[in-house]
Amino acid sequence: MIRAGVVGATGYTGAELLRLLAGHPMVDIEMITSRTEAGRRVDDIFPNLRGHVDACFSQPHVGALAECDIVFFATPNGTAMTMAPALLDTNTKVVDLSADFRLKSADVWAEWYGMPHNCPELLAEAVYGLPELNRAAIRKARLIANPGCYPTAIVLGFLPLLENDCIDLHSLIADAKSGVSGAGRQARVGNLLCETAENFKAYGVPRHRHSPEIQQVCSEITQRQVAITFVPHLVPMIRGIHATLYCKRSHPDDDLQTLFTRRYADEPFVDVLPPGTHPETRSVRGVNECKIAVHQPRDESTVVVLSVIDNLIKGAAGQAIQNMNLMFGYDETLGVKSVAWLP
Amino acid sequence: MIRAGVVGATGYTGAELLRLLAGHPMVDIEMITSRTEAGRRVDDIFPNLRGHVDACFSQPHVGALAECDIVFFATPNGTAMTMAPALLDTNTKVVDLSADFRLKSADVWAEWYGMPHNCPELLAEAVYGLPELNRAAIRKARLIANPGCYPTAIVLGFLPLLENDCIDLHSLIADAKSGVSGAGRQARVGNLLCETAENFKAYGVPRHRHSPEIQQVCSEITQRQVAITFVPHLVPMIRGIHATLYCKRSHPDDDLQTLFTRRYADEPFVDVLPPGTHPETRSVRGVNECKIAVHQPRDESTVVVLSVIDNLIKGAAGQAIQNMNLMFGYDETLGVKSVAWLP
Amino acid sequence: MIRAGVVGATGYTGAELLRLLAGHPMVDIEMITSRTEAGRRVDDIFPNLRGHVDACFSQPHVGALAECDIVFFATPNGTAMTMAPALLDTNTKVVDLSADFRLKSADVWAEWYGMPHNCPELLAEAVYGLPELNRAAIRKARLIANPGCYPTAIVLGFLPLLENDCIDLHSLIADAKSGVSGAGRQARVGNLLCETAENFKAYGVPRHRHSPEIQQVCSEITQRQVAITFVPHLVPMIRGIHATLYCKRSHPDDDLQTLFTRRYADEPFVDVLPPGTHPETRSVRGVNECKIAVHQPRDESTVVVLSVIDNLIKGAAGQAIQNMNLMFGYDETLGVKSVAWLP
Amino acid sequence: MIRAGVVGATGYTGAELLRLLAGHPMVDIEMITSRTEAGRRVDDIFPNLRGHVDACFSQPHVGALAECDIVFFATPNGTAMTMAPALLDTNTKVVDLSADFRLKSADVWAEWYGMPHNCPELLAEAVYGLPELNRAAIRKARLIANPGCYPTAIVLGFLPLLENDCIDLHSLIADAKSGVSGAGRQARVGNLLCETAENFKAYGVPRHRHSPEIQQVCSEITQRQVAITFVPHLVPMIRGIHATLYCKRSHPDDDLQTLFTRRYADEPFVDVLPPGTHPETRSVRGVNECKIAVHQPRDESTVVVLSVIDNLIKGAAGQAIQNMNLMFGYDETLGVKSVAWLP
Repeated sequence: MIRAGVVGATGYTGAELLRLLAGHPMVDIEMITSRTEAGRRVDDIFPNLRGHVDACFSQPHVGALAECDIVFFATPNGTAMTMAPALLDTNTKVVDLSADFRLKSADVWAEWYGMPHNCPELLAEAVYGLPELNRAAIRKARLIANPGCYPTAIVLGFLPLLENDCIDLHSLIADAKSGVSGAGRQARVGNLLCETAENFKAYGVPRHRHSPEIQQVCSEITQRQVAITFVPHLVPMIRGIHATLYCKRSHPDDDLQTLFTRRYADEPFVDVLPPGTHPETRSVRGVNECKIAVHQPRDESTVVVLSVIDNLIKGAAGQAIQNMNLMFGYDETLGVKSVAWLP
Repeated sequence: MIRAGVVGATGYTGAELLRLLAGHPMVDIEMITSRTEAGRRVDDIFPNLRGHVDACFSQPHVGALAECDIVFFATPNGTAMTMAPALLDTNTKVVDLSADFRLKSADVWAEWYGMPHNCPELLAEAVYGLPELNRAAIRKARLIANPGCYPTAIVLGFLPLLENDCIDLHSLIADAKSGVSGAGRQARVGNLLCETAENFKAYGVPRHRHSPEIQQVCSEITQRQVAITFVPHLVPMIRGIHATLYCKRSHPDDDLQTLFTRRYADEPFVDVLPPGTHPETRSVRGVNECKIAVHQPRDESTVVVLSVIDNLIKGAAGQAIQNMNLMFGYDETLGVKSVAWLP
Repeated sequence: MIRAGVVGATGYTGAELLRLLAGHPMVDIEMITSRTEAGRRVDDIFPNLRGHVDACFSQPHVGALAECDIVFFATPNGTAMTMAPALLDTNTKVVDLSADFRLKSADVWAEWYGMPHNCPELLAEAVYGLPELNRAAIRKARLIANPGCYPTAIVLGFLPLLENDCIDLHSLIADAKSGVSGAGRQARVGNLLCETAENFKAYGVPRHRHSPEIQQVCSEITQRQVAITFVPHLVPMIRGIHATLYCKRSHPDDDLQTLFTRRYADEPFVDVLPPGTHPETRSVRGVNECKIAVHQPRDESTVVVLSVIDNLIKGAAGQAIQNMNLMFGYDETLGVKSVAWLP
Repeated sequence: MIRAGVVGATGYTGAELLRLLAGHPMVDIEMITSRTEAGRRVDDIFPNLRGHVDACFSQPHVGALAECDIVFFATPNGTAMTMAPALLDTNTKVVDLSADFRLKSADVWAEWYGMPHNCPELLAEAVYGLPELNRAAIRKARLIANPGCYPTAIVLGFLPLLENDCIDLHSLIADAKSGVSGAGRQARVGNLLCETAENFKAYGVPRHRHSPEIQQVCSEITQRQVAITFVPHLVPMIRGIHATLYCKRSHPDDDLQTLFTRRYADEPFVDVLPPGTHPETRSVRGVNECKIAVHQPRDESTVVVLSVIDNLIKGAAGQAIQNMNLMFGYDETLGVKSVAWLP
């Protein structure tokens, strides 16, 4: 059994982490911290955990957290980088679900997140925790930068095309749609039911923080500059991301269906659908899975890829557990293999 | 006062037509027909009309409908074409909200709608009822092909770019999202709340009937072949279409914001938003309006246009009234100028 | 034309007031105030008003507001009572949509609202603005206490039974359900889409502020003590209140359907449905109407009344306009007679 | 391992049964039948089961089903009674999730379900499958009448009060609210998203089939006639039942909180909440649990009980598995103990 701590567990990502960790056969939850809710019972905020997580939030202290074998950060950006170095020094592994360690350049990070980076020396060491891309490195990592939700859906959708040099690297468009839980559990007018239900809109078109992350990963895959137009939208539902991806293919004869099927044949959490189908977000709701379909609707040149995940699971907490399993040598699916319910 | 008839008024488009006609100061509703509901009170199906429309559905007979000055068809595809010729012969004007007269080629129509066209000789005469494009012709028309909901949002969004030769005509992508009312009031499992709520998906990627309509209109505007990749999606909400449009610009120096603002300056029902903003579907919910924003997110080459309408109003019933107003010489906004409510 | 001011117009009630006032043929909107948003364009917060309300929020000053013929308070509880006396002194009429003038006893008010009342001397003068109950008094009033949303639906449902001494006054139960807009536009975690969608719950069972208001009005109607058990619930939708009312009838032979039909025969905004039917909240969404059905499901003794309103219209802004119309001698329905759209 | 068959598995109850059976460590799914979908892959209709249930629907034949140790009927009313006798004859146990065996009187059944009962001789033997009430009988049963969803929530809420003679048996009111999945997966206009979203209404007030079931169970508990007013409502969400129960208490000094806590202390699937709290339907979404709170809001006499379940789990498929576990001597919680996810 390993001892796990969760820092900043009052958001939706934290809630899902706690649910998954509570059901994981090899984990004891040692600490659950929150600056604002310290002292309050966890199941008071998350009534679904009543009877399953018998604990109170505590203040986050590095000393106490260092007793853990692994610490997850489900904190706002800028927090994990202040505590991670000390934890790593005590041999505690760290999985950061915020953006602190996702970008390789401290300058780019500072530009997009509006503050200087606290421990730029760790950026090179941090492994981008997308197992389908970096499984071997994740197994050996001390520090994981858990991918953003949009980047997970988008990169998994483009990955076989990028790896096989199938497409024009200047033509990538990612039209992505997310449920409202992607915006977190903060009290903001914009996320009220009355502002988001019966409504649909794009946001962040001029500038969204996931853009440099997507671009960096795509460029690493191809070892060339990749330009992506990324437009996120808000869907009036709680969970789910649907990425609709467009690009121009380079070679009209490639069999893309086979390309995708082969690439993901051994992946436990990526499911390539049959030709002509359309994945639904609800088919992956509550589970750690990405479902993908490839289309060529009109002519020889445009490829359309449809990629869906649950933003809180494969896009956050589930992927974090998947990474933890790899880091500790467990079966990669331990504690994150379940069946979505429908409807 | 003119006498109006509505054929096939048991769908959502019909319900909105009745609501708007009931409030129109120059219209008497003479007949409301339905094969399946003949004899039943209209407000029994649409309780919102109780106290406003005091009538029963009747069987559709051309003889009786010919007493009307104008007849609206809110019928499934294939019905209007069987009755329109006889009505036109008796000097009754016709606005068809179905697809029967939208395509100029009877062969293309037959291919997409799976049956031969009944009166191909009327296809040339029928005016495509998008006032922002064909206002003069609509004023003189006897027969209006009311545009589809997706084509309305998409064409209005591309129109200034197409008219001004600003973009690469092979690069058009329309990623469109519609509320469930776009699928009509038919009893289908796929449109149940339990199948559509908390879910998001694309559909019809290999083939959607609005594709040839969009292509035809865009090609007419440019007098050249235009290729569009069109991907529709289903949004878990009742009303609204959001079209996210992508294309490559030809001339990096064009001032697109000014282009759009000028093009629509005198249009009563198209509102170009300030730079940097994102239109919401709810801001046009229940009203006859299209709101548009133009963005150039990443670099010089990609243009992103965001265009929203209410699929049942500007995308159907409201546009039909707008066309009627033009055909009878009324103020174009009569009976269709209202304020959306929010939230 | 009369000049109107709206104080505290950044909430949903304020937004609806502005929409209705903008469309009212006898009203000029003179001032729209907000402490927090002063200087900002109104249509920046409420994009539906773009093109219809061309104004900015200003700071609320009694001096400037006194230029108005009527001032509406759409403020949190405790604000109207600080400004109303000065406005009344300058012959400006006041309609308060908050709770400041709803209770007749300053002590009871202080107990439920947690602060002393500022101008208890006005409580006797304030007229409870339920036109179906107090029409004559409203016509002559300077100061209107606009009813709460729950009390409007509940009192209109019980009214014919109470007036005619048909029921056991100790048996009243009001099981009420409200859309989330009833909770306002404040940034609270509890009103996020992710907390309220796909969820249903009761709240405030031990104690809700609308209880004393309902009890006071019912007791005034009967001139006897009335005891009501009131349980509110939160429905995952934006607008609408559905009150399911239970009581024991005293006289098994009363014809309750006729009683209700006669009582509301001349009321422009109350619609008694045919026997055996069930009103839907969407049938009154966006309009100033209450629809009611009376049932006796099981035996002779229990009566079930179903009463629906739009909480923001008949439960707030629409009723306020109805009151204004009465106060200024206009047709009671002026500017608040419209047709709900469906779906 | 036992072999299980599911008859009529194309509805939502069937889908949940399959999901739970697929994850049950002691069950092999032998047959999944559907008259309408025979030959089609199960995961074609329910994409969440892809990779978990590798099977096609088959035609329902008693001979083949008799190979199973247990057969679940998730069929419309009137089907199970035609096949159950033959299955019982071959020592196959039967759990009927429809209403065929819920009422003890064949005459009452015929009156409410509009057809004569096929095997009235089995009505006495059938055990009403509410483990909290009939655990011992369930263990020995061959034929289980799985309770309706409303009755489960309502009976568990009233049970401690009825067993302890605490309340006036003529005062019971059950104001119940259900998500739309309770109406099933049939293609009906009334269950479309456009008819049910942003709407709330009561239905079936004059007459609902769950009334005699509730009444029968309550009367069996008390051995006296119990009269209940039952009003069901439709909530714009997919899953969940919230029953708000009202009654008059007989003894003002009873400590109801303790009564409930003690009654359910050893029940694995009933959770009595602390005083003053309000259960939410989402806290039991997807899990086999009933959460209950007891309130006495206003005075000494009225009791308010709030009871929530997931209508498809504790109200149907989960309870069926719970019954199966008891019938086969397994741990009662095997395969139905999971944590609800939130949000």
